[in-house]
Amino acid sequence: MRKQIHTKKLHLKEPTVRFCALGGLEEIGTNMMFLEYENEIIVIDAGLGFAEQENPGIDYVIPNTTYLEKKRQNIKALIVTHGHYDHIGAIPHILDKIGNPPIYTSRLTKEIILRRQEDFPHSPKPVFELVAGGETKQISKSFAVTFFDVTHNIPDGFGMIIRTPIGNIVHPGEFKFDYDVHGKPRGLEIWKQVGAEGVHTLFLDSTNAEVPGYSMSERIVERELEKLFREAEGRIIVGTFASLLDRLVEMVKIAEKLGRHVALSGYSMKNNMEIARRLGYLKAGKNTVIPLESIGKYRDDKLVILSTGAQGEPKASLMRIALGEYKQIKIKKGDTIVLSSSIVPGNERSVQSLKDNLARQGAIIFHHKMLDIHSSGHAPQEELKAVMTLVKPRFFLPIHGYYFMRSQNAKLAQATLGLKPSETLVADDGVVVEFTKSAARMTDEQVPAYYVMVDGLGVGDVSEVVLRDRRALAAEGMLVIITTLDKKTGRTLKNPDIISRGFIYLKENQEFLNEIRRKIRSLAGRIPQGQSVDAEYLKTIIRDQIGQFLYNKTKRRPMILPVVIEV
Amino acid sequence: MRKQIHTKKLHLKEPTVRFCALGGLEEIGTNMMFLEYENEIIVIDAGLGFAEQENPGIDYVIPNTTYLEKKRQNIKALIVTHGHYDHIGAIPHILDKIGNPPIYTSRLTKEIILRRQEDFPHSPKPVFELVAGGETKQISKSFAVTFFDVTHNIPDGFGMIIRTPIGNIVHPGEFKFDYDVHGKPRGLEIWKQVGAEGVHTLFLDSTNAEVPGYSMSERIVERELEKLFREAEGRIIVGTFASLLDRLVEMVKIAEKLGRHVALSGYSMKNNMEIARRLGYLKAGKNTVIPLESIGKYRDDKLVILSTGAQGEPKASLMRIALGEYKQIKIKKGDTIVLSSSIVPGNERSVQSLKDNLARQGAIIFHHKMLDIHSSGHAPQEELKAVMTLVKPRFFLPIHGYYFMRSQNAKLAQATLGLKPSETLVADDGVVVEFTKSAARMTDEQVPAYYVMVDGLGVGDVSEVVLRDRRALAAEGMLVIITTLDKKTGRTLKNPDIISRGFIYLKENQEFLNEIRRKIRSLAGRIPQGQSVDAEYLKTIIRDQIGQFLYNKTKRRPMILPVVIEV
Repeated sequence: MRKQIHTKKLHLKEPTVRFCALGGLEEIGTNMMFLEYENEIIVIDAGLGFAEQENPGIDYVIPNTTYLEKKRQNIKALIVTHGHYDHIGAIPHILDKIGNPPIYTSRLTKEIILRRQEDFPHSPKPVFELVAGGETKQISKSFAVTFFDVTHNIPDGFGMIIRTPIGNIVHPGEFKFDYDVHGKPRGLEIWKQVGAEGVHTLFLDSTNAEVPGYSMSERIVERELEKLFREAEGRIIVGTFASLLDRLVEMVKIAEKLGRHVALSGYSMKNNMEIARRLGYLKAGKNTVIPLESIGKYRDDKLVILSTGAQGEPKASLMRIALGEYKQIKIKKGDTIVLSSSIVPGNERSVQSLKDNLARQGAIIFHHKMLDIHSSGHAPQEELKAVMTLVKPRFFLPIHGYYFMRSQNAKLAQATLGLKPSETLVADDGVVVEFTKSAARMTDEQVPAYYVMVDGLGVGDVSEVVLRDRRALAAEGMLVIITTLDKKTGRTLKNPDIISRGFIYLKENQEFLNEIRRKIRSLAGRIPQGQSVDAEYLKTIIRDQIGQFLYNKTKRRPMILPVVIEV
Repeated sequence: MRKQIHTKKLHLKEPTVRFCALGGLEEIGTNMMFLEYENEIIVIDAGLGFAEQENPGIDYVIPNTTYLEKKRQNIKALIVTHGHYDHIGAIPHILDKIGNPPIYTSRLTKEIILRRQEDFPHSPKPVFELVAGGETKQISKSFAVTFFDVTHNIPDGFGMIIRTPIGNIVHPGEFKFDYDVHGKPRGLEIWKQVGAEGVHTLFLDSTNAEVPGYSMSERIVERELEKLFREAEGRIIVGTFASLLDRLVEMVKIAEKLGRHVALSGYSMKNNMEIARRLGYLKAGKNTVIPLESIGKYRDDKLVILSTGAQGEPKASLMRIALGEYKQIKIKKGDTIVLSSSIVPGNERSVQSLKDNLARQGAIIFHHKMLDIHSSGHAPQEELKAVMTLVKPRFFLPIHGYYFMRSQNAKLAQATLGLKPSETLVADDGVVVEFTKSAARMTDEQVPAYYVMVDGLGVGDVSEVVLRDRRALAAEGMLVIITTLDKKTGRTLKNPDIISRGFIYLKENQEFLNEIRRKIRSLAGRIPQGQSVDAEYLKTIIRDQIGQFLYNKTKRRPMILPVVIEV
């Protein structure tokens, strides 16, 4: 009887698709999400993120795949929307853990993923299913996906209509509108077609949901760059992201038109352009792209150098050029530097220092606030609204961005589509959302979604404890205090050893050091003669009382690490 | 004979005024400069700066006054242009060192300086010479100064014509144009008068030298704020700088007009508004400004709260409100939050987190990228050019800003005034500039201008060594390895003690820890039996070989601090 009721309940339960983001919904980057129906899961993207400011010393962070690891046998696909590292960067770290499912992606993205796999020889060989705009793939029993091309700032990105048992879910990947030379948007028909299919829920990138208006057309960017290239009298050195492949390809075209040769500087720049060349995205005359080593053979006004490092990253090519540490390129008076990228929040000071160093050496610098030489790859408000209107979804779920950006995107959808707040789901990372045919709701179920830190070879071994210590050490430094005790007498055997780093330069503060030593000896001396010494007790009073003493003297709280050696 | 020639040379030497900036010419902040003629020195401003990103744990930095300390008997005045901390913040730290010269400043600036002195009871009592726009003061035999009012975003700022033996040097302080309700600039006559006197050299703030166009009028900001205040249905909480006194006063006016009461939140906000009230800048009805404790007595739509912390500073009032840690104010649905300030470079992420936290609690947020509710206090290009044209200097010296900003300002002057590059002096901090009647040139003389760090009670005791250690500890953490050796046998007496922080959480990595221990014992074991142990040698091999071992294992380089205890 019991069993019967149970079965009945199951039967009554409506078909439900579960959604959850493991990253990308409370930050820019670490994009990864999945859809789950019964025993089928499809995963979308597996990106890395940068969070160095809050997590000192970390190389990068990747999403937490704990939930997926337990259900690896259910995972039918990893779909990768485009080839940017915030969408592919976690793949070598997680592929094995999620059971190496087939990767559905485009030609270019596949090549970029494969290139990155080379750096991770222990990661399994990925299995690819190549897809192209217009195709529909039946991924599993319950999920079919129709892919459609979108414009971003790397070629070969796509959006998707995900056909599920509860209806169509649309994930447009990352995109902006493409404009023709007259400033008219191109390719809006695709959105109409998507809308015509009937859409249950629309996912929409929130990166620029706070930015009013339309994108600046890449046509304008190209025109401005051409003008700038034409007017430059000496060498042109462009600093940009190696991932802005569309624009890089365009710059090679402009250079060729103006009779300039192009040299590539920076590891990822060379890699990406080589892939672009191989796949036919970069079409240039035989002598247009030249090896960096040979730039000395050409006149300055015949050269363009495309370089990584427009964010002032210390190890990237442009910063090393600016600091005079780069063998092949030394800045000289008359060089034109073009910074064709925006500044990623948090990099403002390093970009300032980059500009200062270049300007000091006589370079003429142009950046995106001075000229229209950069445009974001993410749709701003008016383009988001246009897509909403064309796609006409029943529910809306803003993706990719901090909470405030997503909530602004949700408000846009409410205003544009007349949706109720309950129909626009501002779901955080880790929150499970349930979609039925007629409803969409956030549940109380939480999937682990805290970051996994990658630091050197370690993935996940840098925990919050370690980071808290790093932050404390950075702010106040530390003192190790080593006391040697005679086990029998309980007396200190010698002057305490003190090692300090990041607190005060003790070599220059001997008197203060002696004061600390005296204080420690007096603490140890308070233990009554003959009484057995409790090392833990001694450590505690050293930590507390020396800590207080130092705070009173300096108003700082270095980390105090007492060591008691009993001999 | 020799002496005669010497005397002759001295006589031939033209009158020369020396100029040097101790801060503010390679950064935003730490403004301090001086002019010197024979045995007379006048100092202008003594500000602090923030450089936390590069200098972890530091409270702030102040300019280096080594040069001035040696010549303290020559210092005739410290002139303070306005009351912002990047112009006054170093005063309590340096006043005594430079011989407590009279401080020439305006009424409001005096009060702000005095307020800050209260926090530094050991700093000497300052002696003030109050000055006002239009006045001329004979500061010493060779220097007289005519003060003129400028518009900034704090009242009572001034610019100066400094009358020297070689001619007039003009320092306009920090300023922007003031516009009337019709958008017409007001008060341009003063610049014409300054120009009519004949100007040798013009100093000009470079903060916005990269920004095209004119300032946004504060009249527009006020209009937008009034509109926003009028439309808000619940409480209004404004986050801004306590130093934007002009706008704060205006907001109280608007609140009063709309029948709202104003509560102040944050230490510096209360202090500054109290000074503004006392000096008559803030004129409000008796019941307009209410104690924060009493906000519970008023209806939400009758309240405006002015709060510090629009930069997401962790300890400031608005961030504590956002985090729910503030007793008197908890965010509720329907609160309107107005962030009326720009974002200081480097604070982007904390502001993002502030907005996210407030939005999550249902607040409606407006910031300066969404509405015209902030305007910079610094003149952009068109205003700088207008001042150049009106003042018509013979030489130009861009002040206040990073190198690139100053070089852009110099280029503006070249284009506007037809000056040669050699006539626009892009002098860095510490570079001595010489002005004669007919010339201006940068010399090779360098005055110490590296930052002095303030950390807790320590001023200058945090050196580059300490900071380097803090950065290293933050990035990679550290291991202390304590080996106890028997002096007689040279054998290790016990298992090595290992303390690690910020590297790997060793509690969870016992096996790795044991591996490190074995490695250390094997290093110590290699010392031939009977051979006397050289502790320094043992330390070196532990540092090198354990360092290499850890790097191979983890691709990280924690700081290794070996300690050898011989008993």
